[in-house]
Amino acid sequence: MIIAMKSDATEEQIEDVCESIRQYGYTPHLIRGEERVVIGAVGKGDNKDHLHSLRSRPGVADVVPILQPYKIVSREMKPEKSVVRVGDLEIGGAEFVVMAGPCSVETRDQLMETAEAVKSAGAQVLRGGAYKPRTSPYDFQGLEVEGLKLLAEARERTGLKIVTETVTAEDVEVVAEYADILQVGARNMQNFALLKKLGRANRPVLLKRGMSSTIKELLLSAEYIASHGNDQVILCERGIRTFETATRNTLDLAAVPVLNELSHLPVIVDPSHGTGRRSLIRPASKAAIAIGADGLIIEVHPRPQEAWSDGAQSLTPPEFSEIMMELRRYVGLESRYLNGALA
Amino acid sequence: MIIAMKSDATEEQIEDVCESIRQYGYTPHLIRGEERVVIGAVGKGDNKDHLHSLRSRPGVADVVPILQPYKIVSREMKPEKSVVRVGDLEIGGAEFVVMAGPCSVETRDQLMETAEAVKSAGAQVLRGGAYKPRTSPYDFQGLEVEGLKLLAEARERTGLKIVTETVTAEDVEVVAEYADILQVGARNMQNFALLKKLGRANRPVLLKRGMSSTIKELLLSAEYIASHGNDQVILCERGIRTFETATRNTLDLAAVPVLNELSHLPVIVDPSHGTGRRSLIRPASKAAIAIGADGLIIEVHPRPQEAWSDGAQSLTPPEFSEIMMELRRYVGLESRYLNGALA
Amino acid sequence: MIIAMKSDATEEQIEDVCESIRQYGYTPHLIRGEERVVIGAVGKGDNKDHLHSLRSRPGVADVVPILQPYKIVSREMKPEKSVVRVGDLEIGGAEFVVMAGPCSVETRDQLMETAEAVKSAGAQVLRGGAYKPRTSPYDFQGLEVEGLKLLAEARERTGLKIVTETVTAEDVEVVAEYADILQVGARNMQNFALLKKLGRANRPVLLKRGMSSTIKELLLSAEYIASHGNDQVILCERGIRTFETATRNTLDLAAVPVLNELSHLPVIVDPSHGTGRRSLIRPASKAAIAIGADGLIIEVHPRPQEAWSDGAQSLTPPEFSEIMMELRRYVGLESRYLNGALA
Amino acid sequence: MIIAMKSDATEEQIEDVCESIRQYGYTPHLIRGEERVVIGAVGKGDNKDHLHSLRSRPGVADVVPILQPYKIVSREMKPEKSVVRVGDLEIGGAEFVVMAGPCSVETRDQLMETAEAVKSAGAQVLRGGAYKPRTSPYDFQGLEVEGLKLLAEARERTGLKIVTETVTAEDVEVVAEYADILQVGARNMQNFALLKKLGRANRPVLLKRGMSSTIKELLLSAEYIASHGNDQVILCERGIRTFETATRNTLDLAAVPVLNELSHLPVIVDPSHGTGRRSLIRPASKAAIAIGADGLIIEVHPRPQEAWSDGAQSLTPPEFSEIMMELRRYVGLESRYLNGALA
Repeated sequence: MIIAMKSDATEEQIEDVCESIRQYGYTPHLIRGEERVVIGAVGKGDNKDHLHSLRSRPGVADVVPILQPYKIVSREMKPEKSVVRVGDLEIGGAEFVVMAGPCSVETRDQLMETAEAVKSAGAQVLRGGAYKPRTSPYDFQGLEVEGLKLLAEARERTGLKIVTETVTAEDVEVVAEYADILQVGARNMQNFALLKKLGRANRPVLLKRGMSSTIKELLLSAEYIASHGNDQVILCERGIRTFETATRNTLDLAAVPVLNELSHLPVIVDPSHGTGRRSLIRPASKAAIAIGADGLIIEVHPRPQEAWSDGAQSLTPPEFSEIMMELRRYVGLESRYLNGALA
Repeated sequence: MIIAMKSDATEEQIEDVCESIRQYGYTPHLIRGEERVVIGAVGKGDNKDHLHSLRSRPGVADVVPILQPYKIVSREMKPEKSVVRVGDLEIGGAEFVVMAGPCSVETRDQLMETAEAVKSAGAQVLRGGAYKPRTSPYDFQGLEVEGLKLLAEARERTGLKIVTETVTAEDVEVVAEYADILQVGARNMQNFALLKKLGRANRPVLLKRGMSSTIKELLLSAEYIASHGNDQVILCERGIRTFETATRNTLDLAAVPVLNELSHLPVIVDPSHGTGRRSLIRPASKAAIAIGADGLIIEVHPRPQEAWSDGAQSLTPPEFSEIMMELRRYVGLESRYLNGALA
Repeated sequence: MIIAMKSDATEEQIEDVCESIRQYGYTPHLIRGEERVVIGAVGKGDNKDHLHSLRSRPGVADVVPILQPYKIVSREMKPEKSVVRVGDLEIGGAEFVVMAGPCSVETRDQLMETAEAVKSAGAQVLRGGAYKPRTSPYDFQGLEVEGLKLLAEARERTGLKIVTETVTAEDVEVVAEYADILQVGARNMQNFALLKKLGRANRPVLLKRGMSSTIKELLLSAEYIASHGNDQVILCERGIRTFETATRNTLDLAAVPVLNELSHLPVIVDPSHGTGRRSLIRPASKAAIAIGADGLIIEVHPRPQEAWSDGAQSLTPPEFSEIMMELRRYVGLESRYLNGALA
Repeated sequence: MIIAMKSDATEEQIEDVCESIRQYGYTPHLIRGEERVVIGAVGKGDNKDHLHSLRSRPGVADVVPILQPYKIVSREMKPEKSVVRVGDLEIGGAEFVVMAGPCSVETRDQLMETAEAVKSAGAQVLRGGAYKPRTSPYDFQGLEVEGLKLLAEARERTGLKIVTETVTAEDVEVVAEYADILQVGARNMQNFALLKKLGRANRPVLLKRGMSSTIKELLLSAEYIASHGNDQVILCERGIRTFETATRNTLDLAAVPVLNELSHLPVIVDPSHGTGRRSLIRPASKAAIAIGADGLIIEVHPRPQEAWSDGAQSLTPPEFSEIMMELRRYVGLESRYLNGALA
């Protein structure tokens, strides 16, 4: 932590800050510049909050943190890339992973039709929401356990792995019973009770970046899960909220290489929520591969115009299949592979 | 819902959209403009999601919602201002309400000292976190039930009402046992499981605006609580996330009169989180009164430099007391009153 | 400038950075922490850009500037508040200053009617755009010199001072011939050619904050004007661009006390552009006074429904007059005064 | 334009709004919904500002524009993609275009060395700032005409086209004398005096998106240039300002396909300013190609650690050359080509 004093800070104020730093369990190091004194607080103390509070002390101009607050998930801690294993599937390795399926599980027919279509197009994981967090209380809220059972049935039929969202800490157990990967939605990225519970779950977690969360906060949320015992975390960029309204969110694709520099965890991209428009899925998916993503999660619905949610951003199975063929060529350029029946 | 067709949309595409509108249970109304056709979808259908999905249809340029999606909490539904009652205290009425206390409940001494100080300065409600949602897993997470018991003890001693945060749906019952007002933190504004649970609680709810939530989304979250049975909701503006970093958040004070136009619910302001700096609390509090807030929630700590969290934005009891005296004059200009021992 | 090394930085990399710091004309100061080395670069060098570029060096984790880059306009340089004089009017002193008038100068009748109305309501300065920067090339662009002449005529008739926008560096001279205060619009806050020209003008400047400019950038733009010779600068908060669309902009009222801490320049608030809605002008104006503004700039039009621009946010003269009476009471609480015929 | 009335609007209020619409030169069309009346204003009138002002009328809930306000640059007006010709170079056609060079022109040696390096790596255009808009008045402001002459000399020596920024309307003529493409910087995207002047210039314009400008505003600025006579405009996405600070800006890559849907103008991407970090240029450039950009503009400096500006985001010539080789393969997948000595 660096404490910058005001240019007119008195010696007494400087000494007062140094004394507090010592009391908090750190060692102060003074740098006397041309215009002001800057104090470094060195040590492994547990009182970072106290150091922050120095900002309101007389004579202090600013307090600037230097250390990254996450550890387990950082590249500094573990330089080599991590691979998350889901049965025989490796996420973060040479295989590029595509998760596809409807926004919501609606009916058996809808789900099975979609599952078979995305399987034959080359996807390895089936997505589909059984528990739906909805902004309006009047919107469809999901089939819940019924939906989980349909997802399990689709897995049996197709061999696809299952990823589905767990909306609350209480649901973690029942969702883990049916799903292969537990998804944390953007609105829950800082639901710390849920993160802690997932830290004790025996399943990989797909952690979506919150709509207005910084990259640092995303990594801190991953650290929550990891520090509670579960380091099988996959990060997901899905667009952030900005002033631009031409797209549903602003897909922060540069976050992918930034995350790859800061963390060893696999990173996938959600172009469906990230853009909100069907016509943008194809170019955004290609770009996600080119910028270094380990996978994609894409919404596919047999009849988007009848979808109970997110119809405007869902692909039809033929559209998805066509895009998958094009994506393989980009995956190839990245020295990765993406198999599938149509390859 | 308004569907704007592209200027080169064919008659077939227009008819196709009208046909879908009918299938979704609405009636299409065409307006043929100079450059394009615009279609209004009229009706009380439950298929707004379907209408939204029309955006991806051939020939469609845009889909624009017209109706506000919240009802119970809207002024259109109930034109007169609501008052939320907490025992003998009325929030949203002629009395201006101040909630004050530490960020976290830390020790009995800290809490009792603060409670007595804020009471004698004129506050009516004691705030203090027993369950703390923290961005980093390595930060202090709260005293939990122990903290709730200390809050109840402080109430007994001072007569102050208690507001404290409930972080998860599971905690609602135990928190409701001790607290007078249940607080939903900014990170939980869209924790829908929690909102639904609070909809069945027998306590007023203080709902904080999410850091990147629109006013519309705040009202939809209030609607969640109200539509599940509890219309005793107090809204709280506490700053939004923007590009500006000089303050911790950007306090959106204009949201207060906007909320007062759109909704009948009481609105309070949190200048502590809204600015993040002790020196800004006084001017921001005065402005909140002048712009029409029904109350304030302010962090006070006997020794901010030793606070376990948020020290930089906490006032000392003497600072708080001095500010309260100044605030009374602004409250008076708004034809409201704010009592207290020092008045 | 502080350079934080990565935790695994080698001694060679550290020495390499220190050597560069010396070459750039600064002195390196090492702090060896538990986890990493942090290097302070001390000195008065002119090579801050070079120090920034160290961020891409091997072994460097981050580069953090410590010094504020503005000097002349800072409180550290000049602790006492500045007063900008416009003839006998003092902005930033005990008198609260209200600038009012139409968005655009449209016709003689419109301007004279407005000027007399705002004068009699107590405003000291008449605003009105003769040169209009418009987002669309198809919108009304202003009466130009014709408009300036009408403004001068209104001054003669009422004794009001005149503030009007200068859109380009070329116009500075002609605008300065007619106006008392030269306004820089939000879109031009970083039009450096214009700022430099204003630095050589013999007129006070009203500098509006850019829609997406930080407080630091606003002060740097003021520094541009001041460092070129003109320190008669009035800062203006007029709302920033955020994700919220319920208001035209998000009025960052807390910027007022922040600016007052960082700078000695007077600060006024524009509630008309800051909110974009007539019904919000009154509460936002009261809040601006309470939070410490030195003045207001408000749009008034005799017939807003016929205004050529910004009708939705313009007050009628009777509305303005009524609000002014209420504002006086808030001004009084701040130990300032606001005269006028109706007081 | 759509005017939504409040649910409790009276018939008189509705008629009043319709009457105004007629006075403004439009025809009102009523849609009576279940909950409210919605009025469409149809016609080619010039009074859109007046329609907007209806928002403040009694009984009006909202005013929603339907028509895109730009015409000449829109796909609706001209469905086929435009190609901008710079001598024998076509931008927006089958050839992928790379513009590369230093942030600022500093010395003859620096520029010639860079020009030859980027030429031999395959770039077609040399970039380099002779006039620099700088946030701080104390930063290097450019070599001005001297820099333009060096750019022209580099063109003669290498055959590269020249793109350089024109900061003010006054400079357009002198810059056009030396440069092949006139660049408008992000801070000047809404410098309307400059845009109008460029509309009368006889040179293609590279228009950079403002840091906080919407896609719609970017297209309106292009419309300014086009409507004043010059439709040779190249759009450039260079990152927008958001809450995220891990990158210098948030590169909005999805803006590329959105612009390609809305407009026929060529679109290029600036990964250097868009990310601000050398290590992100390669992945972001690959992604820009994959998402459909027509070209790139990249900062290259022979010795970034000595650059007078933007050193942290500049590539060295060998880095640039290596990246160019990789980019060719992505360009190939898009059925385009990128020549050059090393291909």
